[in-house]
Amino acid sequence: MSKERLVIVGGDAAGMSAATNARRRRSPEDLEIIVFDKGAFVSYAACGIPYFIGRAVDQVEKLLARRPEEFARVGIQVYTRHQVEAIDLSSRTVLVQPLEGGKAFREPFDHLLIATGAVPIRPPLPGMDAKGVFGVNNLEDALALDRYLEETGAQRAVIVGGGYIGLEMAEALCQRSLQVSLVEKEPQVMLTLDPDMAEPIAQALREIGVALYLGEALQGIEAANGRVRAVVTEARTIPADVVVLGMGVRPNTALAQEAGIPLGEKGSIVVNERMKSPIEGVWAAGDCAQSFHLVSRRPFWVALGTVANKHGRVAGINIAGGYATFPGVVGTAITKVCHLEVARTGLQERELRALGWEWVSARVEDHTRARYYPGSAPITVKLLAERDTGRILGGQIVGGEGSGKRIDVIATALHACLTAHEMANLDLAYAPPFAPVWDPLLNAARQLLRKL
Amino acid sequence: MSKERLVIVGGDAAGMSAATNARRRRSPEDLEIIVFDKGAFVSYAACGIPYFIGRAVDQVEKLLARRPEEFARVGIQVYTRHQVEAIDLSSRTVLVQPLEGGKAFREPFDHLLIATGAVPIRPPLPGMDAKGVFGVNNLEDALALDRYLEETGAQRAVIVGGGYIGLEMAEALCQRSLQVSLVEKEPQVMLTLDPDMAEPIAQALREIGVALYLGEALQGIEAANGRVRAVVTEARTIPADVVVLGMGVRPNTALAQEAGIPLGEKGSIVVNERMKSPIEGVWAAGDCAQSFHLVSRRPFWVALGTVANKHGRVAGINIAGGYATFPGVVGTAITKVCHLEVARTGLQERELRALGWEWVSARVEDHTRARYYPGSAPITVKLLAERDTGRILGGQIVGGEGSGKRIDVIATALHACLTAHEMANLDLAYAPPFAPVWDPLLNAARQLLRKL
Repeated sequence: MSKERLVIVGGDAAGMSAATNARRRRSPEDLEIIVFDKGAFVSYAACGIPYFIGRAVDQVEKLLARRPEEFARVGIQVYTRHQVEAIDLSSRTVLVQPLEGGKAFREPFDHLLIATGAVPIRPPLPGMDAKGVFGVNNLEDALALDRYLEETGAQRAVIVGGGYIGLEMAEALCQRSLQVSLVEKEPQVMLTLDPDMAEPIAQALREIGVALYLGEALQGIEAANGRVRAVVTEARTIPADVVVLGMGVRPNTALAQEAGIPLGEKGSIVVNERMKSPIEGVWAAGDCAQSFHLVSRRPFWVALGTVANKHGRVAGINIAGGYATFPGVVGTAITKVCHLEVARTGLQERELRALGWEWVSARVEDHTRARYYPGSAPITVKLLAERDTGRILGGQIVGGEGSGKRIDVIATALHACLTAHEMANLDLAYAPPFAPVWDPLLNAARQLLRKL
Repeated sequence: MSKERLVIVGGDAAGMSAATNARRRRSPEDLEIIVFDKGAFVSYAACGIPYFIGRAVDQVEKLLARRPEEFARVGIQVYTRHQVEAIDLSSRTVLVQPLEGGKAFREPFDHLLIATGAVPIRPPLPGMDAKGVFGVNNLEDALALDRYLEETGAQRAVIVGGGYIGLEMAEALCQRSLQVSLVEKEPQVMLTLDPDMAEPIAQALREIGVALYLGEALQGIEAANGRVRAVVTEARTIPADVVVLGMGVRPNTALAQEAGIPLGEKGSIVVNERMKSPIEGVWAAGDCAQSFHLVSRRPFWVALGTVANKHGRVAGINIAGGYATFPGVVGTAITKVCHLEVARTGLQERELRALGWEWVSARVEDHTRARYYPGSAPITVKLLAERDTGRILGGQIVGGEGSGKRIDVIATALHACLTAHEMANLDLAYAPPFAPVWDPLLNAARQLLRKL
């Protein structure tokens, strides 16, 4: 067999996970692996950025999983600061522009993996390019924001967007003693939760001093001498020394689209269960690739590090001639906001309404541990089940320490298509330091049963 | 319909749960509910005893879920200190002896629920009745031990038995500054774990100063003036001011046996999925009743508060004319030993060997959170899967904070008969404060896949 070349565009979670998994199966003599990334870093934990900004993680180096030199040692050639500008499917080459200078060149491939991730959404509003307006999508962003905070002694921060990143950043900036406001166009924070479950999170943010302006769309940013001065919403003008954008992301697939590679859900690259695109030899993984939602049974797009790693692993194995599949996701996500652990999985009421499905829901207020055991904290569990079958369709959890990861039980139930009845009978672990004698999940399932 | 009578023998988790569930469905005018318990307390959290002894729970009252007066208010008549001495199936009566004095009387029943719990195993060895030798099976035991420790200023404690209760009591007595030794006849502590998973627990106990004597059977207790002086094993004599027995329990079914009610696994009362014994109108629930093991697919006996509550609920609903079933357990259990959370579910290697099943196992050492996130702690996960089918058969977890309740995912996988492949693809929650990007459970499942 003559030597083959795998070119990977994008060197974060999905790309490097694919590279590593492909390398494990085929030697450098047999498969060349070349990674291009336009950034200065590869293989880093983007999800750790808010904790670096909030100083829970003291050095940015701790977020780097592996460096280019380490990949080089196993025969994976990583070129940082190299932008892939075009994919040519007829000649099977990519056009690469070195960003530190030098001429663009064409790199041939036998296999191409597109792992270009996601790009932050930045609506074309006045002042978005002012100094002091930051995204936190990658390590360069994070370092720039950190430096700006240090150098300017910024006091007043406005976060735009009340999703995971927005909330994590709001808390992080509070921890750095900034005065924080948060603007969100929807009437609730955390749109991936039902409104009743999102309310306690808004409350927790207010308690640590975050000013919340919900239901107010961003209209623009006011600057003075090119530097941010205020954030303007439909209802008010909020003075700001620094602005952090957390308005969501979309798949970074312009490159793929220009090359004629089919796009699907929200513009993500269409792939099969082996992460192959409809074009022979072209694969996609991570935030730029489509997933399948195992509960709605429809194509689904989600940008999450854990999914990106799974995509990358499956792509890498298949590219190297092995066999692996990624069946899909159930929509699990988790975060920590102030003292609250927040988690969700499956479909929420908004999604069920859009699908036209009928459901019943149960919400229980309970405790994380036996009430008499020290550290027992409140936990709220919401479960949704299909009206006629009783099949669990989703769950949401908000509560103190020990609440969040309970979502994994609901996620597993979704994978297995368990009904509320089956869930109410789960043999979950009980001892006073860990749960009440009826785990809150069992209580929620029993509550559902009464309504079905 | 003429008024019916439900007599319940035993007023702890199973009995009172049944009473409450039956009452919810039928009014006092329709169903009389009478509970007899030989002890002074009903409806208490026996699992909380070690934490009361260790002073993590400061008042014994906190372990009382509900008092007889509260049950009286909803028309459940509770007679504490009343021992049921016989069940007469032909006349459908029980013979009750009030323990505070008064004549024995016969109480008729239409429905009888036996919820007599378990009794501690006390081998007939010399000195077992000496003063200063305690079981910790109920609140009276706990109060007596607590009083003894206070009054005698005991310094040296010997625990006999290295199971859940033994280990929890060893730690509790360390917390009360006693010098603690633990004797266990098997070569490991925590026989419900595989030896490799039990070793770190023994190590943790040694680190807090517990002297472990493993593989040494108890031969007897030495007393002076009727009071304990030492514990004698096959290998040594250990001076002791107080001895706590944690040698396991067995179903408390002498009463049932004498009445001719069929017994099954380990002498527990045979019941169907509705918790009915083979005798019409006679039900059993809790530590005295048999369960079904959903993994081994065989009758199984386990004494656990959480199972007792489920049994009781199902029995109560059915007795009241409703319909509920208890499909069975998967063998989940959890505890905290020193800084370690310890949990298990399904079948362990010893059980698989006894069944003649073939399995593969994987053990991974991992972290509870992203490595860079503060508080990330070591966690060890062991998974077992059936060799030919890949079906998950069991799991064990030992690790720092956040480890133990992860067992619930494996328990759910067992209920759903998931394979290692399905488990490796679970969409488990990831964010740096909660897990590495690959949850330790996923890593363990992937490791299994490589061996299948």
